[in-house]
Amino acid sequence: MKTRHLISTTALTFALAGVASANDLRDYARDIFEPLPSTIPALADNPVTPEKIDLGKALFFDPRMSASGVFSCNSCHNLATGGDDNMPTSIGHGWQKGPRNSPTVLNAVFNEAQFWDGRAADLAEQAKGPVQAGVEMANTPENVVATLNSMPQYVEWFKASFPAEGDPVSFDNFAKAIEAYEATLITPAPFDAWLNGDDNALNAEQVAGMELFIDKGCASCHNGVNLGGNGYYPFGLIEKPGADILPEGDKGRFAVTETADDEYVFRASPLRNIDQTAPYFHSGLVWDLKVAVQIMGESQLGEDLNDAEADQIVAFLGSLTGTLPQVVYPILPVETAMTPRPTGEVK
Amino acid sequence: MKTRHLISTTALTFALAGVASANDLRDYARDIFEPLPSTIPALADNPVTPEKIDLGKALFFDPRMSASGVFSCNSCHNLATGGDDNMPTSIGHGWQKGPRNSPTVLNAVFNEAQFWDGRAADLAEQAKGPVQAGVEMANTPENVVATLNSMPQYVEWFKASFPAEGDPVSFDNFAKAIEAYEATLITPAPFDAWLNGDDNALNAEQVAGMELFIDKGCASCHNGVNLGGNGYYPFGLIEKPGADILPEGDKGRFAVTETADDEYVFRASPLRNIDQTAPYFHSGLVWDLKVAVQIMGESQLGEDLNDAEADQIVAFLGSLTGTLPQVVYPILPVETAMTPRPTGEVK
Repeated sequence: MKTRHLISTTALTFALAGVASANDLRDYARDIFEPLPSTIPALADNPVTPEKIDLGKALFFDPRMSASGVFSCNSCHNLATGGDDNMPTSIGHGWQKGPRNSPTVLNAVFNEAQFWDGRAADLAEQAKGPVQAGVEMANTPENVVATLNSMPQYVEWFKASFPAEGDPVSFDNFAKAIEAYEATLITPAPFDAWLNGDDNALNAEQVAGMELFIDKGCASCHNGVNLGGNGYYPFGLIEKPGADILPEGDKGRFAVTETADDEYVFRASPLRNIDQTAPYFHSGLVWDLKVAVQIMGESQLGEDLNDAEADQIVAFLGSLTGTLPQVVYPILPVETAMTPRPTGEVK
Repeated sequence: MKTRHLISTTALTFALAGVASANDLRDYARDIFEPLPSTIPALADNPVTPEKIDLGKALFFDPRMSASGVFSCNSCHNLATGGDDNMPTSIGHGWQKGPRNSPTVLNAVFNEAQFWDGRAADLAEQAKGPVQAGVEMANTPENVVATLNSMPQYVEWFKASFPAEGDPVSFDNFAKAIEAYEATLITPAPFDAWLNGDDNALNAEQVAGMELFIDKGCASCHNGVNLGGNGYYPFGLIEKPGADILPEGDKGRFAVTETADDEYVFRASPLRNIDQTAPYFHSGLVWDLKVAVQIMGESQLGEDLNDAEADQIVAFLGSLTGTLPQVVYPILPVETAMTPRPTGEVK
């Protein structure tokens, strides 16, 4: 299990009281948070090339990667709507509902692990999940590879993306190409500009919200480049929410580690673009960001955030909403007689 | 009912025999077909402006226009895959199957009427259909307008698109904006280049295929700018296909006109990009373009096209596959507390 990034709230409060100037505050914030890098991050065992990015984009948008031909990665991680699907939990194959809220794909490359319970180490491993999940895309690795091999254009793109490999069209490489594309989905935000030295990038309310965010202890779990996504915490550290927010059937990371300590433990949600991705929490049962902030205050920090405080924090969170690089919609390879036919059949 | 564009096969054969040069052939072909225009066509009562195009694109790609939040126009008319969805019939709300194959949106603006039975006079009228169909997007005009009004960015875009109107956010204007966007989805193809004077745009097999296409009588129904889409004909003019291709329950245009003459009458399919949009016919039950061509030969013309002939016609049809203008994927307005929540409920 990854190290938890816990910062003592008391220490923060103390330190913050001594902050004198904007630059001191920035230096202090930079010890807790980190601006997005200006370049696409390197991936373990997966060099990012232009060919691989283009292939990954095609795969990301291709509904033929699902058994039914209805769903692509983009269906639930829609780049038009903050990288998610604006539903409590996604609707998938056979009109089945998934168990957890779809997290945004934007900046996901900076999470230490993927899924709400961190069960995938990276985006390549993640990409293999929904494709096979019976309630999502309901496909099989064999059928994905048969589909890809049936279209000469895809075979060419795989060759160009994995030039050293004799048999480049594989489920592993399918996942690696998607990971490479997703690594480009980075959204620099006003908060990055502020961390990088632009005093005018945040307004006074947003700066006050950031100070509160640190002072109240939110940053104890929501820190680093993604303000979260890098540690696991019990939902209800101080006070466990009711089943209307924390359904009892979903014990979170317990399913991964089978350790009693991990009951109702979830990955701290990364907070970039959070005001674009309602509804909130793994259950997707809270639609209002301010309400979500207040629930977090109570359940995780024992803090009863008043309206003005919650408003300031929400204003700060708005400064995390960034700009996606322009996405040109792909033209996908055409099917052939060999392409497996789509089936909406529910097994 | 619109005039049927019937051309006498005998007259064509006679005329073709006298064609001496490439230019004569081109002049002759231009009497039957028409190249795409170089500009976006004007729409009746709907001036096309850049603002309206952008708004229409956002609406076209917005899954929140469906009750469930799962389907956008682009779901079944996917610009990545030839403007359709590669399924016999689409899967929609509640995993229900639609009754007819989804036609391509590409160049649809040039069809004389929309839908397989021509029941919508134009693309604006068409756009209102699937949004409300219970088996497709299952929404209501009231809910669409409430959704749009809940997002200030959409309200602004409607104001900019319909500047003279006091209450621009309406279901009518929703449809008009989509129509304006769809009018831009035009795909110039090698055949257009050939019609415009470029001898090298088609190879010898494609030219031979075009001559056969005219000579055998295909062009009797498939003519004009879209090589179809401009007249209604009985499927089975000469020989009625079996229920494996022509399901008895779907009587086509009869449902629109309630005239016995219109039983099993359908709009002649427009043929641009046809090799990108399998499966074929209103039933979507034929996957192979060559087979589809041979079925048409038999059922509509009483012609038993041999393999070589069908191959040549398929080669010609390949020259109708064009290039879509680059589509930049839109960033959609974010929901607010007023936005109606998505529901997958099936009524």
